[in-house]
Amino acid sequence: MGFNIKSYLASKRELVDRKLDSLLKYSPKSITPLEESIRYSALSGGKRLRPILMIAANEAFGGKDEKVLPIACALEMIHTYSLIHDDLPCMDDDSLRRGVPTNHNVYGEAVAVLAGDALLTDAFNIMIKEGLESGLRPKILTEIVSDISSAAGSGGMIRGQAIDLALEGVNDVSVDQVEKMHSLKTGAMIEVAISVGAKIGGANDKQLKKLSVFAKALGLSFQIVDDVLDIEGGSDMGKEVGADARNRKTTYPELVGLKKSKRKAEVLTKKALKSIKDFNDKATPLREIALYLTDRKF
Amino acid sequence: MGFNIKSYLASKRELVDRKLDSLLKYSPKSITPLEESIRYSALSGGKRLRPILMIAANEAFGGKDEKVLPIACALEMIHTYSLIHDDLPCMDDDSLRRGVPTNHNVYGEAVAVLAGDALLTDAFNIMIKEGLESGLRPKILTEIVSDISSAAGSGGMIRGQAIDLALEGVNDVSVDQVEKMHSLKTGAMIEVAISVGAKIGGANDKQLKKLSVFAKALGLSFQIVDDVLDIEGGSDMGKEVGADARNRKTTYPELVGLKKSKRKAEVLTKKALKSIKDFNDKATPLREIALYLTDRKF
Repeated sequence: MGFNIKSYLASKRELVDRKLDSLLKYSPKSITPLEESIRYSALSGGKRLRPILMIAANEAFGGKDEKVLPIACALEMIHTYSLIHDDLPCMDDDSLRRGVPTNHNVYGEAVAVLAGDALLTDAFNIMIKEGLESGLRPKILTEIVSDISSAAGSGGMIRGQAIDLALEGVNDVSVDQVEKMHSLKTGAMIEVAISVGAKIGGANDKQLKKLSVFAKALGLSFQIVDDVLDIEGGSDMGKEVGADARNRKTTYPELVGLKKSKRKAEVLTKKALKSIKDFNDKATPLREIALYLTDRKF
Repeated sequence: MGFNIKSYLASKRELVDRKLDSLLKYSPKSITPLEESIRYSALSGGKRLRPILMIAANEAFGGKDEKVLPIACALEMIHTYSLIHDDLPCMDDDSLRRGVPTNHNVYGEAVAVLAGDALLTDAFNIMIKEGLESGLRPKILTEIVSDISSAAGSGGMIRGQAIDLALEGVNDVSVDQVEKMHSLKTGAMIEVAISVGAKIGGANDKQLKKLSVFAKALGLSFQIVDDVLDIEGGSDMGKEVGADARNRKTTYPELVGLKKSKRKAEVLTKKALKSIKDFNDKATPLREIALYLTDRKF
């Protein structure tokens, strides 16, 4: 009874997609393209990495998927808003995302800004309303809103994006700066996906600490692999290949080379796995996701 | 011992300004202009109408200012984010706000988008963390997050802004459409300011219902007066005079005339006051704010 990571990812992705689709239902008679634009980006088939990590972390402590699913979807909505805004002409000016035209290319900039704003705002609404519905108590819900807003806000993901922009075109960017930027821009949301999932599953403080090491290593490894793929042309996110170079972004492979980058990703993955080595079999999906993310070719 | 509305507004505004200033403290060594840009817009001296309404609604039921203040500031942060994004070139393309250059005119569009995103995200963080600190229980906090995200989200303020954009340049806009747009774009946040303040103060369902009538009437009256001032040149928000006409927005005065608009604002104010006529003296500030907003000349 071997564990099949691909079918695990596919089944959880479907779970998330279906729930997101039901959460983002709107009255069809709207006179604005806002609702269509929200659905366009939210349901355009991402990997759903963050929600799946949350589900797997919850599962590692015996938690049921249904309980964590609304929070997982809310986190994916926040991730999706960040992609819509990052793609804007005034930011990274990307024309492709997840293999299709970016939101602003289809609906215009104004609607894209609003669709992002709506996904972010509605995510907090869904956390509370759907979270209560799925049996989460107010106390843990306040903790979840606090953790996720902290990871996404001016001390987390948004700060990472601001640093990313500030470093654009700068010539002497250091490895430390790139790592710091990634730990905020991508890492914070990956970490909170895992910690919130584990909390809902009932993890204790000691286990959460180990998972924090796991998540930090995994988050950086994930980003390094992404940067490698941007150069080698796997175009992981369905983005244009070489977009980083066009935007004059300093990437990890550029600083230390492709070979060392790949090696670094492997070392980080080992570190991640080691940190949760005493977790039981229920953590298998979490371990397998870590391995899979380093090995992926797309 | 007459009630002085001007000194009441000034003292509550100062309370809000001071608290916002302390909530938005950042490490001074940031390499990005994000933090400065957040403070620029959040501390540039708005009227603080929404937080003051929340404070006054709380006071109407004997609540202490300190208990409601963090939530009031969080609501003002959400209002501020909406102004930053509404002013963007792709939206209303405004150059002045609250009498000073708009955020994107000072910091550029990318930073302005991020500053708005950060204010919105951090607002939810502050609601929880500072709300717990000021003695609010998790149960009411979840209700507050739910109410405010609902008012600000795709079924509230953002939907109002999307409708506003969709109606731009349309020739046969009806009074109903303009009222619907205002009730979402401006009304929803004014209503939630009042209902959340009253809930924290301990209002019962019957009182909340009366306040809902009060808030809906006040919200529309406020917006009509704003539209009148945009034409007559009071420039209430420190915006360019005539900005609505430039953006080809259909306003209330344009549809029914200036005189009828002013009359409508007065009728709405009377309706608002009537709805809370059996509230006791503690509701004096709330009543006086309603009167003041209709009479203002700036």
